[in-house]
Amino acid sequence: MKINEARIRARLEAITNLAVTEEGGMMRLALTDADKAARDLLKGWMKEAGMDVKGGDLGTMLGILPGSDQDALPIGIGSHMDTQPNGGKYDGLFGVMAGLEAVCTLADNGIITKSPLTVINWTNEEGARFVPPMLASGTVAGNFEVEWVYNRKDKDGLTYVDELKRIGYMGSMSNRFIKAKAYIEPHIEQGPVLDLEGYQVGIVTGALGITGLDVTIKGQANHAGTTPMGNRKDALVTAAEAMLELRKKTIEYGDPAVITMGIISASPASKNIIPGEVYFSIDMRHDNDTALTALEQDAIKIIKNICAQNGMDSLIERYWRADPVHFDERTVTAIETAVNRLNLNAKKITSGAGHDAVFISSIIPTGMLFVPSIKGMSHCPQEETGWEDIVTGVEVLAETIVELDK
Amino acid sequence: MKINEARIRARLEAITNLAVTEEGGMMRLALTDADKAARDLLKGWMKEAGMDVKGGDLGTMLGILPGSDQDALPIGIGSHMDTQPNGGKYDGLFGVMAGLEAVCTLADNGIITKSPLTVINWTNEEGARFVPPMLASGTVAGNFEVEWVYNRKDKDGLTYVDELKRIGYMGSMSNRFIKAKAYIEPHIEQGPVLDLEGYQVGIVTGALGITGLDVTIKGQANHAGTTPMGNRKDALVTAAEAMLELRKKTIEYGDPAVITMGIISASPASKNIIPGEVYFSIDMRHDNDTALTALEQDAIKIIKNICAQNGMDSLIERYWRADPVHFDERTVTAIETAVNRLNLNAKKITSGAGHDAVFISSIIPTGMLFVPSIKGMSHCPQEETGWEDIVTGVEVLAETIVELDK
Repeated sequence: MKINEARIRARLEAITNLAVTEEGGMMRLALTDADKAARDLLKGWMKEAGMDVKGGDLGTMLGILPGSDQDALPIGIGSHMDTQPNGGKYDGLFGVMAGLEAVCTLADNGIITKSPLTVINWTNEEGARFVPPMLASGTVAGNFEVEWVYNRKDKDGLTYVDELKRIGYMGSMSNRFIKAKAYIEPHIEQGPVLDLEGYQVGIVTGALGITGLDVTIKGQANHAGTTPMGNRKDALVTAAEAMLELRKKTIEYGDPAVITMGIISASPASKNIIPGEVYFSIDMRHDNDTALTALEQDAIKIIKNICAQNGMDSLIERYWRADPVHFDERTVTAIETAVNRLNLNAKKITSGAGHDAVFISSIIPTGMLFVPSIKGMSHCPQEETGWEDIVTGVEVLAETIVELDK
Repeated sequence: MKINEARIRARLEAITNLAVTEEGGMMRLALTDADKAARDLLKGWMKEAGMDVKGGDLGTMLGILPGSDQDALPIGIGSHMDTQPNGGKYDGLFGVMAGLEAVCTLADNGIITKSPLTVINWTNEEGARFVPPMLASGTVAGNFEVEWVYNRKDKDGLTYVDELKRIGYMGSMSNRFIKAKAYIEPHIEQGPVLDLEGYQVGIVTGALGITGLDVTIKGQANHAGTTPMGNRKDALVTAAEAMLELRKKTIEYGDPAVITMGIISASPASKNIIPGEVYFSIDMRHDNDTALTALEQDAIKIIKNICAQNGMDSLIERYWRADPVHFDERTVTAIETAVNRLNLNAKKITSGAGHDAVFISSIIPTGMLFVPSIKGMSHCPQEETGWEDIVTGVEVLAETIVELDK
């Protein structure tokens, strides 16, 4: 099906021009004025496409185009419009706009599906303003309580519910997207694999499981000049040893195992005091549940052993655990069929990132399709996807909807 | 000479009870109300000892007891009364109070020296409130300009000069301690050597030189889940490699070479983003100028090489350089003679820390004596020196004054 390139381009640009940082990044945190402005535009385009626009109790927007079969369950397509601070252009936004564009394309081609088509904009996927991420889809999937979500506060102490009401997008619990034939989330890869290996599309078979650990290593703070090297209990040097061993062990597990130490701090944080305590975070991911558990156990063993060798204590606390997810086979096959019909160069891939689709997959048959991220850049102003790949992604989506509607 | 233990103990306790943290640490930052309270007590005791109390233009306090020889140059004894935040009891304070006590002991024993005796309390030795450390002694020694010092600001934006005036200790430039027969600074070791090796006193022959470097390693921030291990430019892992190599190289240099990475931070500091940039500080010390320079060059080479191997850039900036200092031979010998006369178990030692004496040694024949720090604890509430060692330190000082006065 021919995509109306000018239309989707103009719409993407209308939103990516809304709240831009000096460095060219997006600044559309959930439930801010910039988010509201993007929502208002989306609402207008949904209505223009003949959709009935509804809102969920977590602020999720749903644009519903009726199908020809009154009894058919809906097919949902969507993602999120909120961004990281100074985030990328198409992270989330691509999925929502691809959904809208696919629905418009089907209409342009005179195709009326049996299933109603629901285009969805989930609230607070990034978790950048209200922690943790994916609050709306997570609640719909039964992982969070709505009252708990409502009371989440941003760094200024503003609550989710007050901000949701303030921007005028409080909806109703009865509009939650909980029963459907399928849910498809198109997304940028956010990694380098498709771009580096020359694929046009990624057929996502599932998502990596995640284990998050908070690690504190306890040595002994002391004077930088008066403590001989042999008398030190330098928590930072021990942390460095541990981090290198953790990396080595993770590489031994092979792809898709990954490990990231994203935050580190030394205390008392003085240039002339030996660090007595060091904190660092660990984020470990794997597509295999057993392997992920083994990797976590290995990591704890490595830290404990290195601390013991250096006469130090450690405190290791798990702050997060998400099991690996395997998407619905029939839905994944529908995407594959669409890709083959369009004769595209596609790769089956596991998502390394969390997505609304990961939560939704526990209640609805779910699939995802990826478009390439140039050099794998993500959560930064340099995030980019080629224009041809965006159009290709919408084509695959439109074909997938036809396939799922069969 | 017999020391009046009850007197020095009561005076030390009067000051260490002034501003105590919950953890039992000292909170007597330079030119605060707590500093003023300590100064007021010291001023009273100086007057009680028959001293003329004067003030320098940097806030330094001088208690002067006249000698019998009108033409004799003074002998100075002192240290500082300011502390680190949550600092130790005797760091600095011991030197000032030992000076006062030695002067009182000589008087108790009917000894009148030819030289006037000047007990000194230098301002802002720690550099904890106004950066850098040793602002008063550094200015007296010609390393800083007084106007520049006056305009140093604390973290709340308050200036040195305003705070000095506020607590009522602004003095005159004519009172600077710049010409003397000798300056002796008694101090706690702040390191473990005397305590571990069972010495009662350290005869300090000089001070380690210091090179300080600010290091930034520039990798590439990216998504923690979607970037395979082989496609990462993780600045924190590279920093960890560099830190371990730096430690290894420093140990190769042997004692007294030391290296400390006291501060570290990763950017963007998110648990699920690979660190794109890491900053850490390096503090390197050695008693040999050539070796210190070689160690610095080796350190820079190590960082550059490891960054190059990992395809990263680095930025290395020197924030500090202090040459190694060798104290005056005659003054050091006077301390040694006093130690031998008292039949004490003493060790010649190089100071790893900076002290007012290090600056003053460039204009006045200078020496230092150390008392043991239990387990080498310093700049923390656990800092401790045994009561016997404190008394012994005062005895050595009193004998040293007699020796220097010959």
